[in-house]
Parts: sequence; C-alpha cells; structure tokens
Amino acid sequence: MAYTHHNNELNLAHLGQTVRLKGWVARKRNLGGLIFIDLRDRFGITQLLVQPGHPSYELASTLKSEYVIAITGVVIERESKNPNMATGDIEVNIEELVVLNTAETPPIGISNEDTALEDTRLKYRYLDLRRPVMQNFMIKRAQITQAVREALLLEGFNEFETPILGKSTPEGARDFLVPSRLYAGEFYALPQSPQIYKQLYMVAGFEKYFQIARCFRDEDLRADRQLEFTQVDIETSFLTELEIQSMIERVLAHTFKKVLNVEIKLPIERMPFDRAMSLYGSDKPDLRFGLLLKDLNPLFDHYAIPFLANKSIRGFVVPNGAHLSRKELDAFTTTVKKNHGDALAFLKVSNHELSGSLLKNITDPKQFIESAGLVENDLLLVIAGKDFESASKAAGALRKELGDYLKLASDDDYRFVWIVDWPLFDVNEDGSLTAAHHPFTSPKEADKPLLFSNPQACRAQAYDIVLNGYELGGGSVRIHESHIQQQMFEAIGLSKEIIEERFGFLVGALKYGTPPHGGLALGLDRLVMLMTNTKNIKDVIAFPKTQSARDLMMQAPSSVADAQLEELNLIIKK
Amino acid sequence: MAYTHHNNELNLAHLGQTVRLKGWVARKRNLGGLIFIDLRDRFGITQLLVQPGHPSYELASTLKSEYVIAITGVVIERESKNPNMATGDIEVNIEELVVLNTAETPPIGISNEDTALEDTRLKYRYLDLRRPVMQNFMIKRAQITQAVREALLLEGFNEFETPILGKSTPEGARDFLVPSRLYAGEFYALPQSPQIYKQLYMVAGFEKYFQIARCFRDEDLRADRQLEFTQVDIETSFLTELEIQSMIERVLAHTFKKVLNVEIKLPIERMPFDRAMSLYGSDKPDLRFGLLLKDLNPLFDHYAIPFLANKSIRGFVVPNGAHLSRKELDAFTTTVKKNHGDALAFLKVSNHELSGSLLKNITDPKQFIESAGLVENDLLLVIAGKDFESASKAAGALRKELGDYLKLASDDDYRFVWIVDWPLFDVNEDGSLTAAHHPFTSPKEADKPLLFSNPQACRAQAYDIVLNGYELGGGSVRIHESHIQQQMFEAIGLSKEIIEERFGFLVGALKYGTPPHGGLALGLDRLVMLMTNTKNIKDVIAFPKTQSARDLMMQAPSSVADAQLEELNLIIKK
Repeated sequence: MAYTHHNNELNLAHLGQTVRLKGWVARKRNLGGLIFIDLRDRFGITQLLVQPGHPSYELASTLKSEYVIAITGVVIERESKNPNMATGDIEVNIEELVVLNTAETPPIGISNEDTALEDTRLKYRYLDLRRPVMQNFMIKRAQITQAVREALLLEGFNEFETPILGKSTPEGARDFLVPSRLYAGEFYALPQSPQIYKQLYMVAGFEKYFQIARCFRDEDLRADRQLEFTQVDIETSFLTELEIQSMIERVLAHTFKKVLNVEIKLPIERMPFDRAMSLYGSDKPDLRFGLLLKDLNPLFDHYAIPFLANKSIRGFVVPNGAHLSRKELDAFTTTVKKNHGDALAFLKVSNHELSGSLLKNITDPKQFIESAGLVENDLLLVIAGKDFESASKAAGALRKELGDYLKLASDDDYRFVWIVDWPLFDVNEDGSLTAAHHPFTSPKEADKPLLFSNPQACRAQAYDIVLNGYELGGGSVRIHESHIQQQMFEAIGLSKEIIEERFGFLVGALKYGTPPHGGLALGLDRLVMLMTNTKNIKDVIAFPKTQSARDLMMQAPSSVADAQLEELNLIIKK
Repeated sequence: MAYTHHNNELNLAHLGQTVRLKGWVARKRNLGGLIFIDLRDRFGITQLLVQPGHPSYELASTLKSEYVIAITGVVIERESKNPNMATGDIEVNIEELVVLNTAETPPIGISNEDTALEDTRLKYRYLDLRRPVMQNFMIKRAQITQAVREALLLEGFNEFETPILGKSTPEGARDFLVPSRLYAGEFYALPQSPQIYKQLYMVAGFEKYFQIARCFRDEDLRADRQLEFTQVDIETSFLTELEIQSMIERVLAHTFKKVLNVEIKLPIERMPFDRAMSLYGSDKPDLRFGLLLKDLNPLFDHYAIPFLANKSIRGFVVPNGAHLSRKELDAFTTTVKKNHGDALAFLKVSNHELSGSLLKNITDPKQFIESAGLVENDLLLVIAGKDFESASKAAGALRKELGDYLKLASDDDYRFVWIVDWPLFDVNEDGSLTAAHHPFTSPKEADKPLLFSNPQACRAQAYDIVLNGYELGGGSVRIHESHIQQQMFEAIGLSKEIIEERFGFLVGALKYGTPPHGGLALGLDRLVMLMTNTKNIKDVIAFPKTQSARDLMMQAPSSVADAQLEELNLIIKK
C-alpha cells in the first residue's frame, strides 16, 4: 500500500481519515500508559499515538530513536494542540505498525541543536544530513540550482556537457592529474573550469550554452574553498558586455524571486573597478552600508606626523563611532597589517572635543574638526600604507570588518553590484604581465591596438558580479580574433612553442569563423551560501572534504593496490 | 542593436520589415551581378541579397564560406520560392553589412554530406559540430536530458550532487586514480557511479534523489563505450520494485512524448530473466520482431546426427526465410561461434520439399516437416552448444543479426521491456560467486534466508529496462539491513578486514535507521543514441575520446612538467 501523506501535511481537514505514513522515530514518550511517537520525514513531524491494549502496543514499546517505521492509522484531534507545528492540531491513532529497520543509538544527535564537533559530523555525514537545518540547506541548493536552470532555459540557453578528462594547461591554479593507463607517462587533467570547451561550443555555433559544471583546483584549502566546486557556467555569442550583464541580472532576479521571494531591483548598479577601489578599498564592495573611503593626504599633509610621512593616507568616518574604545580599535590594527597597511590611527569627536591616538600631533583641534568635516560622535579612522593601493586595500578590509562588528548590514538585504572596467593585466614585481582575469579575456574594443604597443594600459571587457561583499561570479567578452589571442599569449610571456603546444587548437579554431562571444561563471556553492545565510561552505555541500582535503566518511584519499600503480606505470617516491 | 530573428523565422508575414540577422556565410553566389548569400545559424538558413551598386556590394564580394557577419535589411518576396526551406518564400535585401570575423577555408566541409575521416572530424570537432546533423544531435541531447529532469521533478525528486573525488574501491571495472598532493602515495578515485553516495542520501532521509551524473571507467574502449559517460542516476526510499519501475516508466513516457511525440504504452511488459533467455537467448531482447527460440532437442534427439550428439540444440523458424542462400546462411556461422555456439545448421521447405545442410541426416523428411511444424517457405535454423545457456546465447545473437539482416525491425518502433527476476549471483568457473548486478542489490524478500544457506539460489530484486535490444538502464532494490549487507560481501568472498576497510562506513551507516530504498541508472548517451537513431555513440557526445582513449583536438592525455610529478611524489617507470 502506498504512503498517503508526508509528515507535514495532516490537519483538522483530515479528521477521521485512514492514512499511511512512514518515517523515522524522532522521539517516543510514554504518558499515562499512552505511547506518543514523533514521526519525522524530510517534510516535517506528525505525532502518533498507540493506545494501551492495542495489538501494536508491545511493538511500539520497543521503538527507539531513528527506527524506521510505517504505520496505518486514523487522524484524530489533539487534546493539547501545538500551534508551532504544521500538524499540531492532530495526531494519528495507530492501527497497524511495521518496523522497516532498527537503529543503534546514533553518534550525533539528529537535531539542529546538536553540538557535535565538525569532524564527527563529517565522519557520520549521512546522520548529520538528517538534521532539519542540513536538510534545508540541501533542498535549498537543489531549488536554487533548478531556478537558475529554469531562468537560463527561458532565455533560450541549452545545457551542454563538457569532458572531465581533459588536458593539463598549467595556467593559474594547480591541476589535478589523472594518469593514463594506455599511454605510460601521460596524464589527463581535471578541468579548473570548462572555459575552453564552452568557447568551442561558441565556435561550433551553438550560441547559448550553460552547464552546472564541476570544477577542480588542487590548491591549499581555505575556509570557503573545496578541492571540487560547482559553477553555473554560461557562454553566449553575438552579445555585448552590457547585454550579457542584463541577461545574468534577469537570471539572478528570477532565482531570488523564485527561491526567496526577494525582488532584486534591475538594472544592477555598475561600478568601475577604479571607483570600487577608491570608495570601498575592495573589488568586491559591500554596499549595504556606507563608511566610504576618503583620501586623507590633503588633510594630514600639513601636519608633520612622522609615521604618516611619505605614506598614502586613506580612511573613513564612522558616524556615532566615538563610543568605540581604544582597546576595541587597537584590535583592528591586525586587520590593517594583514591587508598590506602600515598603520592605523584614529580621532574622535565627543563633547565637541577632539581626542584619539593622533591628538598630540594635531596643533589646531577645532580647525581640524572643521577641515575634516567631523560632527559630534564621529570617529575618523586613519590608515597609512606605502602606496594608494595598499592603503586602500587595508582601509577596505577595515571598513568591511567594522561593518560586521557594528552590525551595519542585514543578512536579508541583498545588494548587488557589477564591477566593470577592469585592467586586462596585473603587473608583477619584475614588471612582467599576467592576465588579470584569464588570457581569453578581450581588451576593450578601443584598447585592442594598445595590446601591441602598451599592453599594461589595456582595459578588459571583464565584469564581476558582487553580492554583499562576496564575488558571486566573474566573466568577460572573450577574444574571438586569432591574432589578438596570439598576441595576448605573447604579452603574458608565453613562447610561440608553448602557445602552439598548449593552445594551438584554440588559436587555430579562431581562424575558422568564430563569432564574438562572452559569458560568465557563477559560483554555485557561494550563491547557495549567501541565499541560505550560512558562513560555512561545507554546510551547502552534501559530502565535502575537510580543510585538510580528506573525506572523513569514506576515508579518501587512500593508498591503492600495487597492481593499480603497476598498470599506471607509476612508482611512489619514498 | 539587438538581433531580431533567427535564420529559420522569416516568411511572407514579415514582408517589408527591417530585420537584423547574424550568422555564418554558408554559401555565396553571384547571379547576374546580384550577390546571394545563404546565412546560417543553428536554427536555419536565410537567403540574403546585395544589389549591384549598393555601398555594401564591394564588402559582400569579399565574403567567403564561414565568415561571420551581421546584417540589417528588408524582407522581400522571392521570385523563385524554395518550398523545402522554412524561409524559402522570402529573402532579405541587405542595407548594412558588418563582417564580425573572417574564416580560412575549413579543413572539413560544414554540411551533412561531408565525408571527412572520423579522426579529422574529431581533430576539428568545433567545425564538425557546425554540421546541421551534429547540431541536431547535441540539441536533442539537451532536450532529452531536460525532459527526463522535468519528469523527475514532477515526480517530486530533487537533483543532488555527489563528489567526483572519491575513494578507490576496486570492484567491477577499473578506477581512474587521482594522486593526492597533500598525502604522498595516496589517491582519490573518480566514481564508476554515484551508487554509494546516492544510497547515503537515502540513509540521510532525502527520499527522492536524482542526478545527471558523470561516471568513469578505465576500461578498454569498445565502439559504444567512452572513458567517461553520463547516467541519469535515480534513488528513492520506501518504494517496492514494482513502484520504482512504474515511476521510471512515467519518466520515459514523458521524455519520448515530449521530445519525439511518441506515445509509449504503459505499463511496460515485464519479462523474467529466464524467459528472456529461453525465448530470445538474450537478457536484452529486441521485441520488435518474432523469431522466438525453441528447444530442438526433442525434435532431433531420435536422429543420430553426430555433430549434434550430447549438445543442447536450440533454434528458430524464419517464416518466408527459404529464399536465403547457403552462402548467406554460412556467413552467420561466425556469429554463432563468436557467441559460444558450436555449430549452425539449417533446413528449409520449398515446393513442399525439405532441403538444407541437415537433409542427409533426416530419414523421414515429410514426417520431419510435420513434427517441426514447418510450412512452405519456412527456414529452420539449428544451433548447437555445449549447454542450454551457450546454445541459447548463440541462437539469440543469430536471431538479432538475422532481424537486422532481414530488416524486420523499424527504427521508429520503440519496444520497451523490463527484464526482472535476475539471479543475485553469477557463478564463476571455480564455483565462487560474484554479484550479478552489484553487491548492494537486495535478494528477493523470500530469498533472504537463502543468502546464508544456499546463496547461489538467491534471486535478486533487480531489473533492467531494455529498448529495442539495448540495455537502457538497470537498477535494484538495495540492501538496507546491515547484517544482510555484511553477509552479501562475505558471499562474494570478501574478508572481514577488506569489508571493514572498503565498506565499513556503509555497513555502519545501515545500522542507524536506513529506510528500504532502491533505484536505477539510465545510460544517457545510449538513450540519446536510440532516440536520435544513430549507431555511433560519439555522435551524441560533443567532445568524445577516440577508441584509443585520446582527445585528438586538445591532444590529451599528454606529458606533464617534472615539477607537477615532483609535487605529487610520483616517478614514471621507464
């Protein structure tokens, strides 16, 4: 007999109906001879009841937490209703009880309040995932993925696959390698992204490609990084930078509306990279709060303050920040130092008097308050760095941290911004160039001649979509002309031989009628994190690796049989 | 300015409209001074026209095949219409022409008739994929995938992800290994299927899982195999074998209706494995034609035919098959021998006379015709093998080949069948057992005690879905009881230590309240092959490997830098 309801569905409208339910015993109590069972499935909980003397009473007495059972019973009204439960008005009087499986006492509690250590949770992930909060993360992930897909299908995209076993092209991050058994000493590589394949789909004329794509980077893990991650990978032909951005905006708006019922106001603001660095000290500014950065050199340059001499000085005013103590502020020095800043100082206005770490250097406090435009209870934070970029980044990091500390931003406020007009190249210390985005990114149309004459002045047709201080995705219009692609590779120092060996097929492909094209990749894990308001990326991945790159449940990686290595022609170095 | 139409859209209803189109130059002709251009995109072709003297005329003269262009023009009626083209009633008179990219002469022709060698097609896959027939394969693949997904979402499933970097458990096929950089001498493995992860989703209570999952097997390639392939991976809790099958039937019916507008009659026939072997000599019978196998020992046993002595004799009647010549029939001997058969003989009835290779052994031809139930023009094929299974398989292979040879089956006829009631184990020559499906398959409920007493008599709760002689997918109800899983591993000869090392977490997981569960995996590549009527699996994969496991376009696998191997602590054996 099929199950009639999930455990969140029954209410007074079902009184008297015979129903069949299944699920896990979340709790069992014996009250005055009656046995009450909370039956859980991923949808909710229904209270069951067994009367003393009923044929199932004895079996019901043996039930323990996490037993899997199926029951038939009749819906009755509860005496003491629970308004906090969807099914809180009713209970089900058991007529038939079947135990589908027993359970030993689980090593972690199946409740949101459980406080097991992360390693224990990961070892018993299949139990950790039973906790309602984790179920919600996974279901939301599936819904978000599907909403994104739905939006892209509505935009006329097709979902296409690309290979996982590809070629190693050691640009950017480190590749995972897969030894070939048939070709001794040769390797496939797992893709860091389907970048080249999606461009080849454009070369082939498919015009609108997307894929929910698994990507791999053999990098040392940080808190929000995994060895493998998922991106919404998008590529399209014949569209301009702005048209691509508009399309992505519609996809994001559809997704937020569908999953969170949140309206995103379109169009999303577009901010040049230079402006973001200048006002926010970050290429992923959090726009939910102010604290805009200022250039403080004009203010401080006529005071002879030794530790600010020859520095770039940036900073920002925290309105009503004067209550922050010296101790609290000193703690932020670490943030400044960690982010390339040299020093942090402060001044505040309380009772119309200036105070703070720089006071002894300020000869004319009243005049200073006026020049700085400070008002009562203002806190002015002053960050010094060796150059504009360093000071800005340090000030930007401090701004972000202070925003969190003062709770200036709400989790329910979704502030998107496009960062545009990026440089095409980063300049290394030795003056050599690397691609700021990746070497397939097109210069701005007007800057194409500069690629040959003064490459580092080139601006890119690149754009990042930023949400609440996180980079949600990045993209660009790609190079579609073979000679530009060749020059781009040369500009980043690749020899003609290396270009031919690694990217010969791509430079070749661009010669046979490649349309203008571009796209973007959204980090799905991060998108889900932001939409579910969790800070731990492992919460939104069903079976994550630890920060030390291990699967604690399956015990991977692991040693393998000698015969396997033999077949692969490999020896492990002792 | 945005593009207004695809190249399959314009017709007489658009006369006089100014349109903007883009695409590839498929053909250019100069007729009496007028330049005609066939403009192609993935949707179709529109004919363009440039008048002599027009400012764009000179530029139009320089166009070559596969140039990418954008045009603005006015829709006009054609003088000589082409009823075979969606846009054959009109042409577009060019007002503005922009060349978006040029093209060298492509190494393969961009037409369905191109006869380039497969290796050339694979090397220039981005051009091969421009051919309309290949575009159709890829678009159909995307549509089929999406239709399957849509059906599963309607059934209440969620699409969940599973890791690609997992653990090597050398059951069944060979694993691809991925060396770990952080743990010298240890490896991740790519999944042969997400089998265990999807079961863990059930343990975790998610109830309905699916994934369009990439799977990997390091096996020697056959014509219809690739190193990586895609399966529609499905798992569900609390359903019986029959309920799972019904759900899959609805998914298939939805997909065939949506993509091909073909109605599949439900329920799909269910045929026990034994019956399939007996009537069709195959566990994946093609039901589009008859030629049912018979047991011929009763017929031949009283003739003393030396080469049939002590053999199992099977065969089938081909109505109106008497016209097949001895030469044609002799050619089929190879098929019989290749499929474990020992001999092929035949008898036919023409002009009411028996003839054929066995005639000299038949002492009473008239009586034989009657006993065998033959009628005029019948051909009786006689296959001998060392036992029932060998003779049946050989006869089944011959049946299939003859069906193809005589064109008894239509490509548009979709005949599904479930093969059910499989044995749980295969018996090896040495008497040891291996799991016929995989070691997570549950015995039939009634056979569970046999697992401990007489395992090889166990039948499995396993089922294959077969379409037109191809296995489209296979599945089973899984073992959800820990002690049954432990016994199953022991029955296939795994020691307690190996069980603990490889599957300890699974045997453990089943102890904490695992629901009954089961599922199925559909081979997506094969499904697309069958639905697009191609015989070459590479046709439905955008970037396939060759049969010798190489990517000819990117040149993978390839050697890697010494530094990469150094980091992985590996040495290549010389």
